[in-house]
Amino acid sequence: MAGNTFGTLFRLTSFGESHGNGVGGVVDGMLPGLDVDTDFVQAELDRRRPGQSSITTPRNESDRVTFFSGIFNGKATGTPIGFVVGNTDQRSQDYGNIVDVFRPSHADYAYLQKYGLRDHRGGGRSSARETIARVVGGALAKIMLRHFGITVSAYTSAVGDVRLEQTYEHLDLAAAESNAVRCPDPSVAERMKACIESARDAKDSVGGVVTCVVRGVPAGLGEPVFDKLQARLAYAMLGINAAKGFEYGSGFAGTRMRGSQHNDLFCIRPDGRVGTQTNRSGGIQGGISNGEDIYFSVAFKPTATILMEQPTVNSLGESVLTTVKGRHDPCVVPRAVPIVEAMAAMVMADAMLVNESMQSLRRR
Amino acid sequence: MAGNTFGTLFRLTSFGESHGNGVGGVVDGMLPGLDVDTDFVQAELDRRRPGQSSITTPRNESDRVTFFSGIFNGKATGTPIGFVVGNTDQRSQDYGNIVDVFRPSHADYAYLQKYGLRDHRGGGRSSARETIARVVGGALAKIMLRHFGITVSAYTSAVGDVRLEQTYEHLDLAAAESNAVRCPDPSVAERMKACIESARDAKDSVGGVVTCVVRGVPAGLGEPVFDKLQARLAYAMLGINAAKGFEYGSGFAGTRMRGSQHNDLFCIRPDGRVGTQTNRSGGIQGGISNGEDIYFSVAFKPTATILMEQPTVNSLGESVLTTVKGRHDPCVVPRAVPIVEAMAAMVMADAMLVNESMQSLRRR
Amino acid sequence: MAGNTFGTLFRLTSFGESHGNGVGGVVDGMLPGLDVDTDFVQAELDRRRPGQSSITTPRNESDRVTFFSGIFNGKATGTPIGFVVGNTDQRSQDYGNIVDVFRPSHADYAYLQKYGLRDHRGGGRSSARETIARVVGGALAKIMLRHFGITVSAYTSAVGDVRLEQTYEHLDLAAAESNAVRCPDPSVAERMKACIESARDAKDSVGGVVTCVVRGVPAGLGEPVFDKLQARLAYAMLGINAAKGFEYGSGFAGTRMRGSQHNDLFCIRPDGRVGTQTNRSGGIQGGISNGEDIYFSVAFKPTATILMEQPTVNSLGESVLTTVKGRHDPCVVPRAVPIVEAMAAMVMADAMLVNESMQSLRRR
Amino acid sequence: MAGNTFGTLFRLTSFGESHGNGVGGVVDGMLPGLDVDTDFVQAELDRRRPGQSSITTPRNESDRVTFFSGIFNGKATGTPIGFVVGNTDQRSQDYGNIVDVFRPSHADYAYLQKYGLRDHRGGGRSSARETIARVVGGALAKIMLRHFGITVSAYTSAVGDVRLEQTYEHLDLAAAESNAVRCPDPSVAERMKACIESARDAKDSVGGVVTCVVRGVPAGLGEPVFDKLQARLAYAMLGINAAKGFEYGSGFAGTRMRGSQHNDLFCIRPDGRVGTQTNRSGGIQGGISNGEDIYFSVAFKPTATILMEQPTVNSLGESVLTTVKGRHDPCVVPRAVPIVEAMAAMVMADAMLVNESMQSLRRR
Repeated sequence: MAGNTFGTLFRLTSFGESHGNGVGGVVDGMLPGLDVDTDFVQAELDRRRPGQSSITTPRNESDRVTFFSGIFNGKATGTPIGFVVGNTDQRSQDYGNIVDVFRPSHADYAYLQKYGLRDHRGGGRSSARETIARVVGGALAKIMLRHFGITVSAYTSAVGDVRLEQTYEHLDLAAAESNAVRCPDPSVAERMKACIESARDAKDSVGGVVTCVVRGVPAGLGEPVFDKLQARLAYAMLGINAAKGFEYGSGFAGTRMRGSQHNDLFCIRPDGRVGTQTNRSGGIQGGISNGEDIYFSVAFKPTATILMEQPTVNSLGESVLTTVKGRHDPCVVPRAVPIVEAMAAMVMADAMLVNESMQSLRRR
Repeated sequence: MAGNTFGTLFRLTSFGESHGNGVGGVVDGMLPGLDVDTDFVQAELDRRRPGQSSITTPRNESDRVTFFSGIFNGKATGTPIGFVVGNTDQRSQDYGNIVDVFRPSHADYAYLQKYGLRDHRGGGRSSARETIARVVGGALAKIMLRHFGITVSAYTSAVGDVRLEQTYEHLDLAAAESNAVRCPDPSVAERMKACIESARDAKDSVGGVVTCVVRGVPAGLGEPVFDKLQARLAYAMLGINAAKGFEYGSGFAGTRMRGSQHNDLFCIRPDGRVGTQTNRSGGIQGGISNGEDIYFSVAFKPTATILMEQPTVNSLGESVLTTVKGRHDPCVVPRAVPIVEAMAAMVMADAMLVNESMQSLRRR
Repeated sequence: MAGNTFGTLFRLTSFGESHGNGVGGVVDGMLPGLDVDTDFVQAELDRRRPGQSSITTPRNESDRVTFFSGIFNGKATGTPIGFVVGNTDQRSQDYGNIVDVFRPSHADYAYLQKYGLRDHRGGGRSSARETIARVVGGALAKIMLRHFGITVSAYTSAVGDVRLEQTYEHLDLAAAESNAVRCPDPSVAERMKACIESARDAKDSVGGVVTCVVRGVPAGLGEPVFDKLQARLAYAMLGINAAKGFEYGSGFAGTRMRGSQHNDLFCIRPDGRVGTQTNRSGGIQGGISNGEDIYFSVAFKPTATILMEQPTVNSLGESVLTTVKGRHDPCVVPRAVPIVEAMAAMVMADAMLVNESMQSLRRR
Repeated sequence: MAGNTFGTLFRLTSFGESHGNGVGGVVDGMLPGLDVDTDFVQAELDRRRPGQSSITTPRNESDRVTFFSGIFNGKATGTPIGFVVGNTDQRSQDYGNIVDVFRPSHADYAYLQKYGLRDHRGGGRSSARETIARVVGGALAKIMLRHFGITVSAYTSAVGDVRLEQTYEHLDLAAAESNAVRCPDPSVAERMKACIESARDAKDSVGGVVTCVVRGVPAGLGEPVFDKLQARLAYAMLGINAAKGFEYGSGFAGTRMRGSQHNDLFCIRPDGRVGTQTNRSGGIQGGISNGEDIYFSVAFKPTATILMEQPTVNSLGESVLTTVKGRHDPCVVPRAVPIVEAMAAMVMADAMLVNESMQSLRRR
């Protein structure tokens, strides 16, 4: 539990607050010799950038990543990759009125209790700008995974009461990027967008769900007992701001089923490989990948920052009213999509490195 | 990701398979000077023991824990506590017919892919007997937490379609131990029991949900970013066999709410302390405990082992039928209750140790 | 810094005091499929056993190891290997007179300051019995290393002023086991033995040096920067009781040389492989093994426990005289030899696992 | 073993090569509320800077540190402190002639074996520029230690055959900074300087020893068994470039003593505190600080880079002659002094954080 480092062999160490000089990190464990497509990394960052559409915050952050190390002649050298994204378009004055106020459902009070002081500007370390480092780390992980044929694709599967009923097998996941909500079904995307706009117009916010699919995973990743692959994924996902829940495979719905309905029967695939006829296991059995698609969902609460006046207390123990002036997303879900992918990619890259040494040595 | 050790400063390292000589572990970080009530540890083990009632497996495991170290004159010395529970009543012959068979929704295939060989007797390391070490570790963590006024209470909140509608504030959690299902509402418990018996009689199994409440937690536990308290809890819970999902506070239901409904407004309590009027945050904000009750739920799938004949394949790639002869719970949920508590207790004890050094030093 | 676990992917977690029920541990990361020769493990334990000769303590500890898990049909399964060695022939009453006394140059005072209480019997956790777990872990590591052609051989290179002048290349290291001192040169061994006996007869003790050679190491092990291979070895060695110093390659003597004398010039070996003409680097350059022999030395202080009366103070702050009744080695060095080997073997096995994933993946 | 992160609760993650965009890192665990004197951090960096005197490399690196996060209104916030020092005055062309050459006693060959490619410019990650991150991390650790009355002071105790005979108690350690060699005895410093200049004039280099003293350490720091305080110090020191050995307290010389000479007898100090009459234990007993001064020495080899022509081989397996054109220190020892201090400070800060939680909780 060392809050700012994630992973065992593929590791991201992150730093940065919303209103300091920048947000960045160090990625350790990138496979030497891989081509590091920095345009791809930047493109991933652009996916999480605010100000992309009418349903995201109008803050306009350019968020250009600078790499300091670990890349030479376009290739990863195996040494740590240091990077930073400068903070710009900060309006610290927006936060002048909340210096002492505990905003409802924010980290303000908890941080003050923990640290004895806090950087009140825009949430400080609890700001969503912290996820910049995750996206860069995840982009590097994706480059590594892609080299081995593994892809990670997330999409918005629910916004408020608007739910995408089809499961991932019946969707064209690439279509998710074609709309601002990042829902692969265009008509559902429209309804989701309306739901968000309705909340925004009411100076309110709304929650939702992101679903993620990892394909091309070889059998054998994940460690039994505490580091089951789903445990690492759950850990990664619940570490994202505003995440409230995680389920994989059949998830909570599976609790209502009987074993005879739920069990995935093994079969022999046409290519001779062992597979399962169904995939309620979500590609993981006993904590270890079984070669089927891995899929899971993450619940996100409605954005805590709303533009209505709310009663609260301040650090002097006084009852006060607070109105937030900052610019915020009325729904975090669309911009959470690339972050879910990033965290999943880092979990998979780490699992791959941890697993590989044993696999390789036992075959020698 | 070192699969068999859990925690940073309060750590459990676990070992053991279902059919080896024993299951045990090492607990590091127990506070020196604390009275170690070994009867309490044994009582916790008895709560997870098979054969407790008509709805659990008829295997009769006595499961007596032996401590090797770390306790002197009844007190923890601060050195690691080694312990083992011997394996008895093993019927390896029950598994003779499944040496080469991949049981549906079990870890058999994934283990073989990972390790190149497997201990086929009763699931080996993937057996639920592995949780013995967790319960011992959790019991020691509970002793430490209790010393600081923190309690951890779990109960069965759903079995199949039978759902406990009341939330924890309206329940007498102590009543959960008065029935075999571990549901604090006796009438719902009866319906749950009937649901399990119905599945059992059909040679089938059923899933469910465990809810857990942690009370008396001071504000400040948990680390921002990757080691948010909910991330550690999710990681701990998804590492339990058969767990499929985790949610805390408002959870998945909260995704349907608007921010104005969801936000927990701060208030001043009669005792002058800052609190929240509602607790959809589940006692955690920004990854850090805020002093309110922490509560969360864990989804468990229906037991994979059912007594029906099922089609599957074996390690030779042949299609076969399998019938399991072992003795198994038709529903894992009642016996998962003490395991959820144990894992939660270890997360909290670890968070407490990790947090305390900073708290103490910054006040000096 | 989690005191009782050693290693990253090959890990030993250790427990046990001199006078509890037993000393043991958990080894994680053993390569699945390897034959685990438990007789070899026991033989390694026998090498550290007290009572082997006239120059070691007359305590007669049988020290039989029991394995609980991780081995099936004689092969490692890849799951953690739990083990214990029971404590026998304990004479707790020998320590009745030192309950409150701080023995000179022992851990008594420091432990009491740290933990607020201590197990005074025989040093508790600071006892050399703790090294039992290291020897078992090291024996398993040796089995793994041997599979890949790597050997670890240590020997006594100094006792008091008796120094073995020849370097390891000119010695038959296997001869070390032929005498009680574990010095490969029989005539020097005789002089060392006389030195130890002279100290023993004077109710005194004497220090010395252990040298260790690791052969067959492939180039590429070790991580740059903080986890240089020599840093891991130094860490491992200074964690052994009574160790006071570590040097590798040219060591402290190398500080007196000029670069032109010290540099190891690269050459092409007859087999076409790159090698070095000399090996002052000790087989490690930039923290990474270069394929040459790795060698290093560890300094051990004279045993703190001597049979003379010594003035000291007790926990009440009173000046007292203390005479130790326990049975102790007049020189720890001969019995430190297998422990140095064990720790070195675990470092190498861990480095091999950590390195292999990158090596394997970058070649795919 | 994750090569680029150091420490458990006080952690430095480092990145950067000699010829990339910059060298930097992330410090995690800085105590919130502490004043961060960035001028002091810069002054520490200036101490390691090349070009300070006639006996160091004429490279003129300004090495200004930029902080990105973790500091607000001059105080540490408890969140991670990201920083970078830009690389300037790089002469990559100096290295054009060594692209394929394995320089004697450098990391070139080992890196290539490990990573399959290398950044040949100035040693890449194995360059001494990597220590910039250590010095910044160490400066922050010193700020924290100073707050609790702990000081860390290192000095040059040997250069080649010129040895400082007096032990630290008889020296004015502050005087070390008054000369270029960093030896607190001015006359010995002169002789050391002459020794270095003599080597330099011969296009050669020379080794030496740094000694370090830590004062004001409370009893109780360090963990028994693997994480003994001396083990952490040895690990930290052997991770520094060019370090070849470590000894603490009586060190290697102590191996020649008898126990009756070596034991530190406990006594009651005039202030009533328990102390020892001598300090051959070097302030650490059983791996735990006992309240006396901690002192240790680190051996450094002669700089591998010398300006003479040397025979070696290249990556094509050809025998070649190499002459290095880069600018290098003829003796690393003077500039190693602040690095030894930095690593020691980080070890102590980490030990303090790890120890404090138990200390604080067991007193509650």
